[in-house]
Amino acid sequence: MTQLFEQTLSVLNCGLASFADNLELANAEVTRLAWQPPALGEVAAGLDLASLIAHPLVEQANQRAFAQYLAAQPMLVDVKPASEAIAAMAARKLILHSGPPIAWAQMCGPVKGAIVGAILLEGWADNHEDAERLAREGGVSLEPCHHHDAVGPMAGVISPSMPLFVVQNSANGRHAYSNFNEGLGKVLRFGANGPDVLARLRWMKQTLAPALKAALAASGPIELRPLMAQALQMGDEVHNRNAAATGLFIKRIVPALLDTGLPLEQIRAVTQALVENDHFFLNLSMAACKSMMDAAAAVPFSSMVTVMARNGVNFGIRLSGTGDTWFQAPANPVEGLFFPGYGVADAAADLGDSAITETAGVGGFAMASSPAIVKFVGGTPADAVNHSRRMQSITLGSNPAFTLPALNFAPTAAGIDARKVADRGILPVINTGIAHRLAGVGQIGAGITTAPMPCFVDAIRALAEQVRAHLHAHPHEQETRTS
Amino acid sequence: MTQLFEQTLSVLNCGLASFADNLELANAEVTRLAWQPPALGEVAAGLDLASLIAHPLVEQANQRAFAQYLAAQPMLVDVKPASEAIAAMAARKLILHSGPPIAWAQMCGPVKGAIVGAILLEGWADNHEDAERLAREGGVSLEPCHHHDAVGPMAGVISPSMPLFVVQNSANGRHAYSNFNEGLGKVLRFGANGPDVLARLRWMKQTLAPALKAALAASGPIELRPLMAQALQMGDEVHNRNAAATGLFIKRIVPALLDTGLPLEQIRAVTQALVENDHFFLNLSMAACKSMMDAAAAVPFSSMVTVMARNGVNFGIRLSGTGDTWFQAPANPVEGLFFPGYGVADAAADLGDSAITETAGVGGFAMASSPAIVKFVGGTPADAVNHSRRMQSITLGSNPAFTLPALNFAPTAAGIDARKVADRGILPVINTGIAHRLAGVGQIGAGITTAPMPCFVDAIRALAEQVRAHLHAHPHEQETRTS
Repeated sequence: MTQLFEQTLSVLNCGLASFADNLELANAEVTRLAWQPPALGEVAAGLDLASLIAHPLVEQANQRAFAQYLAAQPMLVDVKPASEAIAAMAARKLILHSGPPIAWAQMCGPVKGAIVGAILLEGWADNHEDAERLAREGGVSLEPCHHHDAVGPMAGVISPSMPLFVVQNSANGRHAYSNFNEGLGKVLRFGANGPDVLARLRWMKQTLAPALKAALAASGPIELRPLMAQALQMGDEVHNRNAAATGLFIKRIVPALLDTGLPLEQIRAVTQALVENDHFFLNLSMAACKSMMDAAAAVPFSSMVTVMARNGVNFGIRLSGTGDTWFQAPANPVEGLFFPGYGVADAAADLGDSAITETAGVGGFAMASSPAIVKFVGGTPADAVNHSRRMQSITLGSNPAFTLPALNFAPTAAGIDARKVADRGILPVINTGIAHRLAGVGQIGAGITTAPMPCFVDAIRALAEQVRAHLHAHPHEQETRTS
Repeated sequence: MTQLFEQTLSVLNCGLASFADNLELANAEVTRLAWQPPALGEVAAGLDLASLIAHPLVEQANQRAFAQYLAAQPMLVDVKPASEAIAAMAARKLILHSGPPIAWAQMCGPVKGAIVGAILLEGWADNHEDAERLAREGGVSLEPCHHHDAVGPMAGVISPSMPLFVVQNSANGRHAYSNFNEGLGKVLRFGANGPDVLARLRWMKQTLAPALKAALAASGPIELRPLMAQALQMGDEVHNRNAAATGLFIKRIVPALLDTGLPLEQIRAVTQALVENDHFFLNLSMAACKSMMDAAAAVPFSSMVTVMARNGVNFGIRLSGTGDTWFQAPANPVEGLFFPGYGVADAAADLGDSAITETAGVGGFAMASSPAIVKFVGGTPADAVNHSRRMQSITLGSNPAFTLPALNFAPTAAGIDARKVADRGILPVINTGIAHRLAGVGQIGAGITTAPMPCFVDAIRALAEQVRAHLHAHPHEQETRTS
């Protein structure tokens, strides 16, 4: 004991900073550990979390959900107008948007702008003022894409006449949908709704969509997962970088286009649009990821995250075990690179359904595959590798279909476990574009953000309640813990 | 002194192994350094090397040669039959092959097979026996591609009616040529010469070449260096992996093909051939590299390597300062992966002009860009990074046009300095395919090899003699050393 007091103090501090402050005032050397108690340090939430860790009901459910995710085989099978693909759209004036549900009054600029554009495209109003009034006064239903098996990047707006990619999971027969990518610049998904934007959307439904539909009929279904896997070997993470994947898709679809018998002029125009848009594959990647995550959905008691999506105000997640319930929190800020002339003050909050890619183990989770992405979202290639490694500690496993060359072909971390996120305080990383807060300005940067912790804490609470209710109703089911 | 003898011996041994052997017999701990004296330890060669190091004539020449290499802008400008592109071919029965000069009798199986195929293609003989006799009896001139501004992979056989890519360096107006890539399997470049092979070659000159020529006329010249640079960001090293580069080329050429007014059937067939051959860009990469290296050629006193090429028996190099002289040695073995059913005993010696890619700073020098290449040539992604790093110590500089994402966008090592190779004992690394030693079996593996040291030692000797002769003739030019 006397020896102890003779030694120089060497202190590791975790938890309250004030302990370290006092020791440093007394000239002791203190290393501060970045640690906080699980589940945001809320005692009740911590107890809920503890009740779920290693719980056999949850473990078994997660195994099932994760296996269903791994078994999914998303195939691009068709192109259809939204009104044909989504039954609700044929029945009423319905426009879909990205993220969790949100009322018109609360929506951010880009989403409002995109909805106005969609109303004009559908001919439900003749001018911007009338279109905005229609939306404001409830003349159009506004619902999340995710409520209709669909996803859309940024504003994510889908209206009945827009063409959708139809992706079918050949393992369970279910469909997932996404809209078409418009390219960069002034585009609907960033809230632009001028004549050029509407003209491009009309061209997409009148020229592009029938051509792709015919090409798919000629080629047969296209397996999307192997295509994504190849792109991961070619510098894409298939969220913010899709240059290789788009090239691979072109190699599949252009020969098929040439087999359609369509007029040469149409084939030329479609081919030109594809080669000019390195982001074209993004929406296919998203639909494929949606298809894979839907395969894992609705397994009671599973803590696997099946949706992460943003509406420009809130970030929302869904767990497999809690079904259609959204757990929401204000979106975290984006750390990124702004295009010249723009800064943080110009940015909308994080937006879009495209975080479905991270939910499925690609995007930010596969950043190690895409060192060149750091030129777009910031950081260094080493940071990209670290993001991919860190995600291994919050997932149920990894996906052998998606390997990372820079990590010696290790599979990507996949199947986010809400328990691990809350327990370890490590948030899912998301590569994301940054929209201007005003409708129609467009993309002003790109960067990296995270899913906010309160979503996971609330989800854990709801799941714990579900487990408690179940055990209450079935008292014979002894709670036995696996190790 | 007494203290010294009391200490445990701790020995680093460099040079003769027998010192270490004896010490180990006496139970001393010895660390053996992998070192050998420069220039293979030959005293005269070592003195020649010493005479060139930091020599102002050489330094200035290297600066000029390297600057001309960096300034080169290879553009794909046209497609022409070899007889139109290469004047000597119109004048006499001439067939080109890869590597340094070699007589028919000494040639390896695949090169002989390819020459027989070319003679049949040209109609200079009606059957294999007559074709072989013609070649054996000197009825056809056999000369290196490099003697006619051309390069070809593996056997590298070019005959008058074959179509060539015409690449022009817009910085100096000079042309470089390469043949077309036939894809994998039974192909002329591996010595196959059956009816299928000849039919494909005929299709290439009758259908593919006119279509590409027309597409180039429609698109205008295509800059190749930016395309290669982009491919380095997408997992290619543009020697053994050209999947991304081929995709990027398809994105440029197919829209142009659709603008040619050619029959749809021809456009379909050409597009199909392009999308089915991930190696299609290899020959364009080689022609671009040849164009860049020719820009650095023929600068008196420069020790920069401008050619590395193999004829299936010998490996040959050329220095800028020694012009058209070849320095040859038997090719080093290839360490690699064999396709199932094949092994070292089946392999031909290292073959082809494709090491022009390494000479230009890509291929093995840019392996860090291509972690997935190790699935093809062996090793790990970490090995690939190490190869790229190690090459920095034998080059005059690096090429800012070609950056390596995995090395935080460091430029590739480029401009091999024969002095540094001989001085440091580090050999240029080359990614290479492995041909079966018998004509026509085809590719049986791929791996990594090196350029043999005697080529560099001989080249250093010749360059030193050149410098001595110059100083003898111009005694007023004092030899002053730069530091």
